[in-house]
Amino acid sequence: MRFPITHTELESIAIADFGLSEPLREGAQILTLFATERISAKLIVLFPGQILPEHWHPPVGDDPGKEEILRGYWGTVRYFEQGDAPVDTALVPKGKEHCYTCGKRIDLTPGSQVIIPPGVKHWMQGGDEGGCVISFSTCVRDILDQFTDEDIVRTTRIVDDGE
Amino acid sequence: MRFPITHTELESIAIADFGLSEPLREGAQILTLFATERISAKLIVLFPGQILPEHWHPPVGDDPGKEEILRGYWGTVRYFEQGDAPVDTALVPKGKEHCYTCGKRIDLTPGSQVIIPPGVKHWMQGGDEGGCVISFSTCVRDILDQFTDEDIVRTTRIVDDGE
Repeated sequence: MRFPITHTELESIAIADFGLSEPLREGAQILTLFATERISAKLIVLFPGQILPEHWHPPVGDDPGKEEILRGYWGTVRYFEQGDAPVDTALVPKGKEHCYTCGKRIDLTPGSQVIIPPGVKHWMQGGDEGGCVISFSTCVRDILDQFTDEDIVRTTRIVDDGE
Repeated sequence: MRFPITHTELESIAIADFGLSEPLREGAQILTLFATERISAKLIVLFPGQILPEHWHPPVGDDPGKEEILRGYWGTVRYFEQGDAPVDTALVPKGKEHCYTCGKRIDLTPGSQVIIPPGVKHWMQGGDEGGCVISFSTCVRDILDQFTDEDIVRTTRIVDDGE
């Protein structure tokens, strides 16, 4: 199952590491298909066990905040949303349990989808074979996303280590 | 190239005939993937030569009108937009030339996409093998779409012919 993309798009796939410098543990491969002032669509690919860290989309001015629909396209992406269910800490990086509070799990397989209202905390993880979801949303302002992990910054910092 | 859909979705594919009762000439196969108050996504499949008639998305109250992105997924869909280019009348049903005014043609093949601003007139036609596009848009109010063809109604009428 391949999603048709152009050569230009192939060259513009972003690897997000959320400033944590451990992209295979907490990171995501993201291709923005388009982004206008009103709507956007992305492909998000997660390797097996790779985590897109817990975050939410806050209100911005007159906008109630980003609404997002995730639709499974290939493989499995484990989606976790805020709720009463406890977090399965075996899935979370050791020592980072405080960064993951959402335990309500929905496995996104091809054709299944979830609607994520503004403000609802969520995170995702690639299943045993990894997975790909399509993210459809209202206007994207990634830089304003709020993360549970206070160490996260949305833009990778290049650190001069003095060597 | 198959787009993964669920069994429930398979059963809910709509065939729009725009009230013209000639769906193979002017019609479309449409699967709504989701539709919220803010955003929507559909798959639109057109058979070879089949036409989705010329229309535009008008403003609705405070909303400037639907913005739509069409992205080629399979085959070819010929997209026609308002502009200076003359209409290729060979592609239009005989006797219906007055219903097609947009001649600026862009062929949507897998991975290519167009952004359709509110109010911009457009129509589509399946290419030689037919085609499938993904339609991403702001809130859908199909019932308010405006068509060039005054015979078009958005809901099929069941006509009692008295027999």
